Amino acid sequence: MFSPLIEDLIRALRCLPGVGPKSAQRMAMYLLEKDRDAAGLLASSLQQAVEKVGRCSRCRTLTEQDVCSLCHNPRRDHTLLCVVETPADVLAIEQAGNYHGLYFVLHGHLSPIDGVGPADLGLDLLGERLGEQVEQGISELIIATNPTVEGEATAQFIAERARAKGVAVSRIAHGVPIGGELEYIDGGTLAHAFNSRTVL
Amino acid sequence: MFSPLIEDLIRALRCLPGVGPKSAQRMAMYLLEKDRDAAGLLASSLQQAVEKVGRCSRCRTLTEQDVCSLCHNPRRDHTLLCVVETPADVLAIEQAGNYHGLYFVLHGHLSPIDGVGPADLGLDLLGERLGEQVEQGISELIIATNPTVEGEATAQFIAERARAKGVAVSRIAHGVPIGGELEYIDGGTLAHAFNSRTVL
Repeated sequence: MFSPLIEDLIRALRCLPGVGPKSAQRMAMYLLEKDRDAAGLLASSLQQAVEKVGRCSRCRTLTEQDVCSLCHNPRRDHTLLCVVETPADVLAIEQAGNYHGLYFVLHGHLSPIDGVGPADLGLDLLGERLGEQVEQGISELIIATNPTVEGEATAQFIAERARAKGVAVSRIAHGVPIGGELEYIDGGTLAHAFNSRTVL
Repeated sequence: MFSPLIEDLIRALRCLPGVGPKSAQRMAMYLLEKDRDAAGLLASSLQQAVEKVGRCSRCRTLTEQDVCSLCHNPRRDHTLLCVVETPADVLAIEQAGNYHGLYFVLHGHLSPIDGVGPADLGLDLLGERLGEQVEQGISELIIATNPTVEGEATAQFIAERARAKGVAVSRIAHGVPIGGELEYIDGGTLAHAFNSRTVL
């Protein structure tokens, strides 16, 4: 129906998460009809990001710099290291605003079925960092992988390695969300909240 | 929080219709983490489309060709011309599948407040086409602008011009949608449906 270049654009837009055929068509029409400048800008931003964004050599988060701004920041607490699955998790924790240490991004979790092993998650690099004795070294490793089966397995695996290097390891708490109503919480979370109850 | 290139990408993605800050962030993360090939392809598709897609010299729809495939198709009925507001309307009518004539795309509607006059809608080009006597010429002009105040005004304006050139003019029917239930139809549509009732 549309000309080949427009069809190509609609197909390319469908690669975006949450964009189906109708949305892709609407986006293509909008960009071509109303906002070609924005479309040009988006094309060059994409090109630039794809070419230049790599991983921080310290924490593996996405960045075009060699060392990201968080790892570089002298005002962060360099003795705390928080392990997360994705760069988006870093953002979520930063937005919560009460953690001031550094991060380590796994880019996934251990999953033998999908062929994801320790090397893919950069656990050798993490091991090196835990062994480092520059300045004070890492005093505590906080594991914030997702509370899924794979996330828990990854947490256990990393915890054992860290303990072997004599680093204190902790896991963020899981339970009923603050402001949540018990009535609407799923059974698994409630069971976990009972098992992990703390002394008042 | 993110590095400059990633922030630029997130900002650029927000130009897409229906994409807010959270979705843009999710899209940027997805493209950079999971599918850089698709991101590169999207960048080049956008670039190509922005540079090359223009308007058909006959019907003004979006195309990178001089004359679009519909205007070019000898199996279409070249004596029927349907006036629509946008290229997406052409697609909607084509998908309904029972119209086999040609189209003319206004890219908007008359709107003096926004400074949109007849010249912006290509009505001079439409006038030329109605005056043409190549082969059989246009026998009927079907106006399918939206049933909004501006769409109706545009329809009236075009109808007068076409009648002055001796071309038969019609407007697509408006009323209760097929399969719609009266109970849920808005009052304006119902009033119109009563006024436009046909003899059984």
